[in-house]
Amino acid sequence: MSHSPVIKTSGIDNVSFGTNVTVVQPVNIYGSFIGDDAFIGPFVEIQKNTHIGQRTKIQSHSFLCEYTTIGNDCFIGHGVMFANDMFRNGKPDARPESWARITIGNSVSIGSNATILAVSICNNVVIGAGSVVTKNISAPGIYAGNPARLLRHLPHDAA
Amino acid sequence: MSHSPVIKTSGIDNVSFGTNVTVVQPVNIYGSFIGDDAFIGPFVEIQKNTHIGQRTKIQSHSFLCEYTTIGNDCFIGHGVMFANDMFRNGKPDARPESWARITIGNSVSIGSNATILAVSICNNVVIGAGSVVTKNISAPGIYAGNPARLLRHLPHDAA
Amino acid sequence: MSHSPVIKTSGIDNVSFGTNVTVVQPVNIYGSFIGDDAFIGPFVEIQKNTHIGQRTKIQSHSFLCEYTTIGNDCFIGHGVMFANDMFRNGKPDARPESWARITIGNSVSIGSNATILAVSICNNVVIGAGSVVTKNISAPGIYAGNPARLLRHLPHDAA
Repeated sequence: MSHSPVIKTSGIDNVSFGTNVTVVQPVNIYGSFIGDDAFIGPFVEIQKNTHIGQRTKIQSHSFLCEYTTIGNDCFIGHGVMFANDMFRNGKPDARPESWARITIGNSVSIGSNATILAVSICNNVVIGAGSVVTKNISAPGIYAGNPARLLRHLPHDAA
Repeated sequence: MSHSPVIKTSGIDNVSFGTNVTVVQPVNIYGSFIGDDAFIGPFVEIQKNTHIGQRTKIQSHSFLCEYTTIGNDCFIGHGVMFANDMFRNGKPDARPESWARITIGNSVSIGSNATILAVSICNNVVIGAGSVVTKNISAPGIYAGNPARLLRHLPHDAA
Repeated sequence: MSHSPVIKTSGIDNVSFGTNVTVVQPVNIYGSFIGDDAFIGPFVEIQKNTHIGQRTKIQSHSFLCEYTTIGNDCFIGHGVMFANDMFRNGKPDARPESWARITIGNSVSIGSNATILAVSICNNVVIGAGSVVTKNISAPGIYAGNPARLLRHLPHDAA
């Protein structure tokens, strides 16, 4: 026999919005801070304890895990997944206090279908579409591949 | 001139649920068996002739193709795609009887944005985020990359 | 304090459909032409100035960016992302006239979770699941990897 599942519905719950934010439903966002003039596309999930900066765009199908901070003027492409539990003991870690923090600087553009593990990325970085970022990035530039490696520095490195 | 399309709507159709399953709408699930205490996140599609074990979590944005069996206590991350038609003749194969079966053991954790082709994966395996699994995995351990390769064995290999 | 965001809702807006097209809601499709007998799965976003050929299937979770043209009898798997802005100057380019065009021929099958950059792909091509296509493809065959490379030619190369 079949039982009745508990049905919950995606939506916007306990989110603090700045001014002039646009959200395209359906989304599932809870316990997040979203800065002025940000854009959130459809089919996006953003977990609690996240912070999204001003004028940052989160495109369709992306997922932001708990404890992700994204700076100002960033572009998060479509289908980008952030993951901060590395399953180091061979399975998910149930203790939030052991999950790593993910910190993305300002003016960072992440291509579609990229995967961002528990790392920090500095300002003025491009991550190529489909890349997997496994290590911290501390120098401005364009990075791509699985694992992502520096392709070239950017002219505004000195910025 | 434009014609009117046939509009269908995602939902839950002909699914057999165990006890205490949680589903976050919107989802598109049909012809599946979902075990006790499982969790299905939003924006998930699960096709028919699939079986999901007890306490297994299917996170947002994932897609399970027909003839996928997942064991107990598994964690399927966000944006994980299962694909059992390898287009061997250069195009989709219209005959379901020729599609491969995908079998995932117990206590398998699959990182976000991973892609699982027509393979079997044994118990106690971790697949890194963004990996592409192209071959069977028969030894417990952590696997990652495109194509996925063994990174290290797990201490509970002998389990 | 929290402000009220501008809430928009996904849907079908200003789309020209051929005959006998099937669409599974929810989707977000605007300013597109979709040919006879096409299929559009759930959780799909298709931007404006796109053209989808006859009998082509766009599976769940895929995203088609502006200026993408897909031929007839194609199969676009689940979670496939098209991206035509390469962030060449280190950030998104706000000028649509500078975005590249993406052109996919007839009878092209693209595996799930693949990423297609600003390229042209000829007729009779298979792209493996999880691949990242970074260069034009002008010979029929099966291509896979990140970046995608030719795995083998197809018997109908001469077609």
